[in-house]
Amino acid sequence: MATDFASGLARAATLTQDRLTREFAAMSDLPVVQAMAYAVKGGKGLRGFLVLESAALHGVVAARATAPAAAIEALHAYSLVHDDLPCMDDDDLRRGQPTVHRKWDEATAVLAGDALQTLAFQLCAAPEVGNAEVRIALVAALAKAAGADGMVLGQALDIAAETAAEPLTLEQITALQAGKTGALIAWSAEAGAILAGADPAPMRRYAAALGLAFQIADDILDVEGDAEAVGKALRKDAEAGKATFVSLLGLDAAKARASALIDEACVALEPFGAKADSLRDAARFVISRRN
Amino acid sequence: MATDFASGLARAATLTQDRLTREFAAMSDLPVVQAMAYAVKGGKGLRGFLVLESAALHGVVAARATAPAAAIEALHAYSLVHDDLPCMDDDDLRRGQPTVHRKWDEATAVLAGDALQTLAFQLCAAPEVGNAEVRIALVAALAKAAGADGMVLGQALDIAAETAAEPLTLEQITALQAGKTGALIAWSAEAGAILAGADPAPMRRYAAALGLAFQIADDILDVEGDAEAVGKALRKDAEAGKATFVSLLGLDAAKARASALIDEACVALEPFGAKADSLRDAARFVISRRN
Repeated sequence: MATDFASGLARAATLTQDRLTREFAAMSDLPVVQAMAYAVKGGKGLRGFLVLESAALHGVVAARATAPAAAIEALHAYSLVHDDLPCMDDDDLRRGQPTVHRKWDEATAVLAGDALQTLAFQLCAAPEVGNAEVRIALVAALAKAAGADGMVLGQALDIAAETAAEPLTLEQITALQAGKTGALIAWSAEAGAILAGADPAPMRRYAAALGLAFQIADDILDVEGDAEAVGKALRKDAEAGKATFVSLLGLDAAKARASALIDEACVALEPFGAKADSLRDAARFVISRRN
Repeated sequence: MATDFASGLARAATLTQDRLTREFAAMSDLPVVQAMAYAVKGGKGLRGFLVLESAALHGVVAARATAPAAAIEALHAYSLVHDDLPCMDDDDLRRGQPTVHRKWDEATAVLAGDALQTLAFQLCAAPEVGNAEVRIALVAALAKAAGADGMVLGQALDIAAETAAEPLTLEQITALQAGKTGALIAWSAEAGAILAGADPAPMRRYAAALGLAFQIADDILDVEGDAEAVGKALRKDAEAGKATFVSLLGLDAAKARASALIDEACVALEPFGAKADSLRDAARFVISRRN
């Protein structure tokens, strides 16, 4: 099962990367485009995988779902490139490689991130994705997930937390992560339902539990992980005195909470029966990953 | 006529600003949202005006065109906020006010720009704009205009020019500006045709001439303008030894070229007759403006 999941993840990453490579090949060969191509490489591709699996679960062929899968990977990559900037988290390493502003420069990193966001919307609007209703629904949901009500809200709350007098409460951290990480994961999981014109509610329940578990696992990894395996600097949160799920709950309770959330995510998939096994595996992977 | 144009521009700016204010009011009161609202204020609103006028010319009511007009103003504001960053043009003043990273900080400026881009796509996808076909066509065209084939390409060429051994040629400057300034102006002018499902070719010809004239006028203003009236630092290009239309053509020939382009833009509007007078005025305004 775990092997099936790993190969499914690899297959999704190949489809997604090929689609993105096709886009970059049609652009100029300027550093900004090289930086865009660099930024989308080497990730797990979990969000793209969720799009493709959610599509398959709803009977949507991969040929329609690949562009949205590539879109969410481009959007995620943009958020990482900007997050790594000196004025944000100031990170030198990402996925074991120099961050974009270290390999090129800050201006290229700002522009590459900007253009990756644009590309995400362009890919959702691609004719191959489906009829205009489906495409505009994907675009509207993506804008909602990525903007100042979603991901950027989470990032802004994260910045505000750094200068706040008190560390965040569990409720505040949960709200922050629902934006910062949860919103894109939710879009990915719901994308298949949107592509099929089906009710996205079960996928939304699955994604809400999965997204929160993902972030708790990230906080656990920040404490227990090996920087080399993870491919980025760790223990930064503890050093900065930032509240995390681990600092607030303790390590054991954080693990128990993540595990309970994965059970919740699997329960949400019950209407789909065994067809949703790969999404159950994805949920289990999220809390067992080492990077 | 000039008064008519000025009042039309002011009316468009009010519609656009009100639509944007409605969006910001529905968001959190975090600094990033305050910065977004700040960034869209105080501009001439030329792009939003072009959307509304192009819509009216094609028989599309303002109620449908206001969200796309607000979208292009949000997208333009995002490009200015990121362009002003220390790692890009490093500007302290914009529209006579402190730039976003000077008033807040760099992280807030990066995020506010990011979220303004997202908002632009969200506004194009708003149900009030029209049916799904129209909305997805606007989104696809906006992504094309804003991304690494359009505006970001122009910005990347601009950065590359700074470290190039030779100053750019007239052809290279023209290509650079077609991306950096021309692409969004073209989208604005074509938006009305897209909203009406009409042929965008005449508006495309108008916009190509207008966009280039706009940039030549900007270069003239950089040499002849008054920094206080313009509201930003001037003579930066000459000081940096950057090639501009003025440095390449000379001041008199640059003015003659801009004037000829305005004639060209007006000729492109001939199919519309007198109905397009406000767009002709807009073209004349572009080369007579003092800021």
